[in-house]
Amino acid sequence: MIRFNNDYNRAAHPAVLQALADTAADSFPGYGTDPWCRAAADEIKTHLDCPEAAVHFLVGGTQVNFTAIAAALRPYQSAICADSGHIHAHETGAVEHTGHKILAVPGREGKLTAAQVAELGEQYRQSPVQEHITQPKLVYVSFPTEYGTVYSLRELTDLRVVCDKYGMYLFVDGARMGYGLAARGGDVTLRDMARLADMFTVGGTKCGALFGEALVITEPALQPDFRSYIKQNGGMLAKGWLLGLQFAALFRDGIYFDICRRAVDLAMQIRDAFAARGIPFYIDSPTNQQFVLLTRDQIRALEGKYTFEPDHDAGDGRQCVRFCTSWATTQAEADALMADIARL
Amino acid sequence: MIRFNNDYNRAAHPAVLQALADTAADSFPGYGTDPWCRAAADEIKTHLDCPEAAVHFLVGGTQVNFTAIAAALRPYQSAICADSGHIHAHETGAVEHTGHKILAVPGREGKLTAAQVAELGEQYRQSPVQEHITQPKLVYVSFPTEYGTVYSLRELTDLRVVCDKYGMYLFVDGARMGYGLAARGGDVTLRDMARLADMFTVGGTKCGALFGEALVITEPALQPDFRSYIKQNGGMLAKGWLLGLQFAALFRDGIYFDICRRAVDLAMQIRDAFAARGIPFYIDSPTNQQFVLLTRDQIRALEGKYTFEPDHDAGDGRQCVRFCTSWATTQAEADALMADIARL
Amino acid sequence: MIRFNNDYNRAAHPAVLQALADTAADSFPGYGTDPWCRAAADEIKTHLDCPEAAVHFLVGGTQVNFTAIAAALRPYQSAICADSGHIHAHETGAVEHTGHKILAVPGREGKLTAAQVAELGEQYRQSPVQEHITQPKLVYVSFPTEYGTVYSLRELTDLRVVCDKYGMYLFVDGARMGYGLAARGGDVTLRDMARLADMFTVGGTKCGALFGEALVITEPALQPDFRSYIKQNGGMLAKGWLLGLQFAALFRDGIYFDICRRAVDLAMQIRDAFAARGIPFYIDSPTNQQFVLLTRDQIRALEGKYTFEPDHDAGDGRQCVRFCTSWATTQAEADALMADIARL
Amino acid sequence: MIRFNNDYNRAAHPAVLQALADTAADSFPGYGTDPWCRAAADEIKTHLDCPEAAVHFLVGGTQVNFTAIAAALRPYQSAICADSGHIHAHETGAVEHTGHKILAVPGREGKLTAAQVAELGEQYRQSPVQEHITQPKLVYVSFPTEYGTVYSLRELTDLRVVCDKYGMYLFVDGARMGYGLAARGGDVTLRDMARLADMFTVGGTKCGALFGEALVITEPALQPDFRSYIKQNGGMLAKGWLLGLQFAALFRDGIYFDICRRAVDLAMQIRDAFAARGIPFYIDSPTNQQFVLLTRDQIRALEGKYTFEPDHDAGDGRQCVRFCTSWATTQAEADALMADIARL
Repeated sequence: MIRFNNDYNRAAHPAVLQALADTAADSFPGYGTDPWCRAAADEIKTHLDCPEAAVHFLVGGTQVNFTAIAAALRPYQSAICADSGHIHAHETGAVEHTGHKILAVPGREGKLTAAQVAELGEQYRQSPVQEHITQPKLVYVSFPTEYGTVYSLRELTDLRVVCDKYGMYLFVDGARMGYGLAARGGDVTLRDMARLADMFTVGGTKCGALFGEALVITEPALQPDFRSYIKQNGGMLAKGWLLGLQFAALFRDGIYFDICRRAVDLAMQIRDAFAARGIPFYIDSPTNQQFVLLTRDQIRALEGKYTFEPDHDAGDGRQCVRFCTSWATTQAEADALMADIARL
Repeated sequence: MIRFNNDYNRAAHPAVLQALADTAADSFPGYGTDPWCRAAADEIKTHLDCPEAAVHFLVGGTQVNFTAIAAALRPYQSAICADSGHIHAHETGAVEHTGHKILAVPGREGKLTAAQVAELGEQYRQSPVQEHITQPKLVYVSFPTEYGTVYSLRELTDLRVVCDKYGMYLFVDGARMGYGLAARGGDVTLRDMARLADMFTVGGTKCGALFGEALVITEPALQPDFRSYIKQNGGMLAKGWLLGLQFAALFRDGIYFDICRRAVDLAMQIRDAFAARGIPFYIDSPTNQQFVLLTRDQIRALEGKYTFEPDHDAGDGRQCVRFCTSWATTQAEADALMADIARL
Repeated sequence: MIRFNNDYNRAAHPAVLQALADTAADSFPGYGTDPWCRAAADEIKTHLDCPEAAVHFLVGGTQVNFTAIAAALRPYQSAICADSGHIHAHETGAVEHTGHKILAVPGREGKLTAAQVAELGEQYRQSPVQEHITQPKLVYVSFPTEYGTVYSLRELTDLRVVCDKYGMYLFVDGARMGYGLAARGGDVTLRDMARLADMFTVGGTKCGALFGEALVITEPALQPDFRSYIKQNGGMLAKGWLLGLQFAALFRDGIYFDICRRAVDLAMQIRDAFAARGIPFYIDSPTNQQFVLLTRDQIRALEGKYTFEPDHDAGDGRQCVRFCTSWATTQAEADALMADIARL
Repeated sequence: MIRFNNDYNRAAHPAVLQALADTAADSFPGYGTDPWCRAAADEIKTHLDCPEAAVHFLVGGTQVNFTAIAAALRPYQSAICADSGHIHAHETGAVEHTGHKILAVPGREGKLTAAQVAELGEQYRQSPVQEHITQPKLVYVSFPTEYGTVYSLRELTDLRVVCDKYGMYLFVDGARMGYGLAARGGDVTLRDMARLADMFTVGGTKCGALFGEALVITEPALQPDFRSYIKQNGGMLAKGWLLGLQFAALFRDGIYFDICRRAVDLAMQIRDAFAARGIPFYIDSPTNQQFVLLTRDQIRALEGKYTFEPDHDAGDGRQCVRFCTSWATTQAEADALMADIARL
């Protein structure tokens, strides 16, 4: 069975495992106060041009999302996101569980536009009864989105401008940040993220680590006492160095960027194979997730040998399914799949 | 100035004020443990055919909504409502503030359909990853809706059936219950409410009281320790008898029903006057709230003499505005308005 | 039956009822945006020397306490109070329900000392693992306390100094503020409150109103968007002018201060009567609540004619019971009681 | 430097690391739906005599505590714990952050007595105003406690009896469960835990794993939809098999029990060495944490070679410090320490 069902079905990149092995006999201070967390934070910050950024390491994606969002908002404030946004669609209402409303607007290929944000900002600003509605205060975008699409630098900049206009924070969920930065045709860098977002995550779980998400907070107002939020929300790992170690291993020598770029390259080859075979796409994705519309026969032909994930019934006898490459996918695996696609 | 802007701009029906005056010198036990609350609960229950119902009196609408909804849900459960629903659109995210997601679906004239509820129920039931989404557990409907429309007995029964099928609670926000029960062409009674809903409110604030909402809980599973929820959420009035007194006064001799029916009668006269003048309606409402589309000239012609409430810009040079009658509106006031409508 | 069981068993002072009657036919804007709320706020502010204070009117005590405290705190921050504090002992965990820990310390006669606050402040400041504990950020004191005692100006000033030192807010729960200001031997004025506290309430419910608590916010950082907190927490009365009206009536001509002073005078007479009879006090209270230790025989002798409230079993065959005067207590009622006390 | 400062300063037992290495190339389904989690749950259940128990794996201790406690309680219910309890003293108010009050009572050597629980249960039961206080519904005990002490089977049974009497849940925080089960003179087994507690944790982090806590839920009423609580609270690890793997490795062949027993044996040797030297103990602990009272000179004599943790100033020129053994401590390390203790 060759696995294309998701990008978190394998343990970790060898460099990560090696780092763990190398330090197995060592002792460290707990709760993220160790040298590895400091080293990893410094390593990440070399990519940011933002020396005053705070970098924290949390265990999981849902956890870092609700912790950071709740920390940024006052009780009557809400978060704007696309209706396909992970916090709205896949996290068991975790943000609402912290007490905050999500204002979900129809996404365009999984993305939010600056105009949509401006509309909600304007609506609040002009409301004669502001106290009867929530104040939209944070914009959540995922990069890449749940559909694999990415924001262009122009789009992100527009979001920043509208956030500034309405006094909102911009939060970027980078659970798949590495794949987003490597997007075919993409033009956004980590430096741009640090310049445009108030907070963003650099995902480890789906990008080569066993687990772990780095949270970068560039906005000074959001930095104080952040460790208290992490602890209170159960996100502070006792053996915190396990997080630092992994990120240090991934960012040293740019492994993080390389492995994600390779995964995107393989996904592009697969995309081309589907296109060459005339198979339609649900959405045009330049990253490691490819959503294609297959007939039942085509699914049958592939499912014996490959895993891939059903997304939804496309309604015309076709199923939308997701093929996902990862840091662990090999050229041989992609070649096998492409050969079989050509035979569909 | 003749007031049609809302149904809560006047103090209270004379019977309510008289009841307060009559008891001004008396002493009572606190926190709703007094004879007036018991009497009022009994009075309301004579209309229900549900002797085991629990009746509580809270001060305000937002308060009773979030208190009751949060008491019914476990943390991972959510409430379904129309996107025009009061809890979604006008209560500052109070339900989310209690930790629960609202699943808002596009309302049809402010109403939710059984099919929409079934779709969400089915979606959850069939989800292979239920733990990643919230469980829709409570259906919120307002009766009448924020647009003055009402559910028919058929529609309410359909909602009950689907709630039973998916194990959901049905909650009816009756902030304007009296006007809903008197809806022109409506066929729902309080007995139906008690039979079909698990919880519903009987609004006092907009229906003749100074303030106060009665909450009727028919579902036994939702009754235990409800006073603890009320107290914890700040809804327990120290001088609770002030609530009981008012509801006793309004339900004695059926005043509540009479005054709301009269308000709806006046609204129907006004509706006919607008229709006769060829003025379009935003929505066809059989209750005390009438939403009409006026030109700027027409607004100018009326606004010197009457208050009415802007709702939204209808986009074609017309404004949607609300004219609202209440228990306090007189025939003379309606006549004056109708005369002026005829002259538009 | 003559009622000394509490200070909220009667409707309202005649001036309040008259104000309601006088405006029964008038229409007002909703949600506290009316002229009466403005007038009442202005009236209260004439007693404050703090023109920039914000004054809001909420319905009940628990409600105003948790709304204000939660609005002042970030999620990882906690409130300090005496273990007899109302928020800790009588409000169904409402503050914790908003997500905040209460650090309860043993009260001395219901009071908190500056030293106790300093100890907790210091403990946090010196903790090497601050992120593992909550940050004490708000000091809650009740004035008068649940035992009727009051802080002296010296004690309140000391609390202010320690709050300043540790960056804490000082919140005064003035549910019985009127009685506290009239405390025999007391030296604190509303001006002092406004100068020393960041927020405080001026209770109406127990001091002559039907219901209602005025919240005064002097700290500018706590003022923005406060109406959003009120609405979200269910504390915004639709017919908000009913609150403004009552406070305007009570503060006009100083009625609020006069009626509470009279109640305290009567309580002092009763205190003297108990003392003269050699009956011990549980606590020495200079306000309208008197806690005395009665034998079962003494209780039996009084309970046929008077209501009073059991507090706790004092363990030596005596019960601690509370006698409470109020704005409604008459000299004749007090005289009757005193005559019977003399006969015990 | 030889480390006795805590039991979480080293990565993991070799069997755990080996298991991770052995599966590094394998793919697994996500979110704990993998065979390893099932295997580990089955392995743990062989020690329980409770086939219907549910076993879940979460990442951290604070997380599992607040997730489980909040899942068990309705909003107006509270948890009872000793004032030294981890949830009260070391978790940044995480339980209160979920909305629940903690009723902290003075611990006796870190332990709660059945009598203390009964007192709170009785107090609630007899309260004439139950709705003004929280309902104590869950008893939290740590085993071993934060001071290393353990409950005897008698004490645990007494707690169970009182929980049954008052309808409370018994929750055991077993972050150091392995050391507790190996307590010198202890008589509690995992079977007893499963029989007496409604929920308990079996800690991995401090007992040989990299991270991870197993939560065992024996009470059927607390089992439904528990995965939704885990996900919503950020405790569901994407690569959940990493948790299952570790527990499977530790429970296979009883490694978990063996390594903790060995750590306690070493701690007992160290305890004896301190005792032989006449050094007083803060508390008499039969597990891996030893709290001794050292003079400054004694501390100076040891701190160059060993790490240990300051607990508090004992007030008489002595410091209370903690020496902690773990699964990683060697006999040679203990011998070295004992030799130096003898020289103090």
